[in-house]
Amino acid sequence: MNCGIGQALEALGDSWTLLIIRDAFFGARRFGDFERSLGIAKNVLTARLQHLVDHEILERVDIGSEGQRFEYRLTGKGRALLPVLTAMREWSDEWVFGHGNEPVVVKDRRTGRRVPKLRLVDADGRALEPGDLRAVPGPGATRETIRRLTPRER
Amino acid sequence: MNCGIGQALEALGDSWTLLIIRDAFFGARRFGDFERSLGIAKNVLTARLQHLVDHEILERVDIGSEGQRFEYRLTGKGRALLPVLTAMREWSDEWVFGHGNEPVVVKDRRTGRRVPKLRLVDADGRALEPGDLRAVPGPGATRETIRRLTPRER
Repeated sequence: MNCGIGQALEALGDSWTLLIIRDAFFGARRFGDFERSLGIAKNVLTARLQHLVDHEILERVDIGSEGQRFEYRLTGKGRALLPVLTAMREWSDEWVFGHGNEPVVVKDRRTGRRVPKLRLVDADGRALEPGDLRAVPGPGATRETIRRLTPRER
Repeated sequence: MNCGIGQALEALGDSWTLLIIRDAFFGARRFGDFERSLGIAKNVLTARLQHLVDHEILERVDIGSEGQRFEYRLTGKGRALLPVLTAMREWSDEWVFGHGNEPVVVKDRRTGRRVPKLRLVDADGRALEPGDLRAVPGPGATRETIRRLTPRER
């Protein structure tokens, strides 16, 4: 699919997959960590972990002497999903839970202060609104993408 | 679910839903706009649009005189999803398509320049890495969330 959102969705798969990634950010490593946190069936968890390993979002690391103990660790590609998860959490905090009802707060370890919200800003640091943006075909655009981005007459 | 990512996933539903929101940001308004762009079955599109209206991400606006023509428009809650879609697109551009192969480029209408990537920064504007962050239970945390965020002895 010639679309960044479509590709991200393909890699992230279903809802379980993103919750596994969330738990990996929170420190889960072992099969049992994810199983306990998510209350997910073993066969489903096995399939989702394999999906994430196949997409190089998690890596499976042998931590035992005889290949009997494994950990799943976020790769660079996996850690790069932090803005995706952060944007989702911040949206829900504002629009679903509401201020003062946030289930999770993310702080800067070094200062103990809350991390500022992600913001779309221009090169000078000014906030951008959807109306300020224009999506245009990029260097990898297919004919289909070009068509989708071309305004139609109504 | 006492989790911002879980709640966002519930509201966003399946992959079609996020692609509908993407198209709405790109200017799609009518049922036929989404149908053409996505190549989606009418009954599936109807259900997904209704899901988004139920979640107040889209609003259905009567633009005809006799209730025969409707548009679907992003609400404030829907427009607030821009960072989620942007983070997904940027992740795919970097990790799936690669530099120079981006299908879509987003520019600042006012300057024509590419919009800088979303970055997680501290209060002083310095970039934050996953290791700099600590997730702690927020004011709306349930017992389950507190348990999940509490490091276990290994």
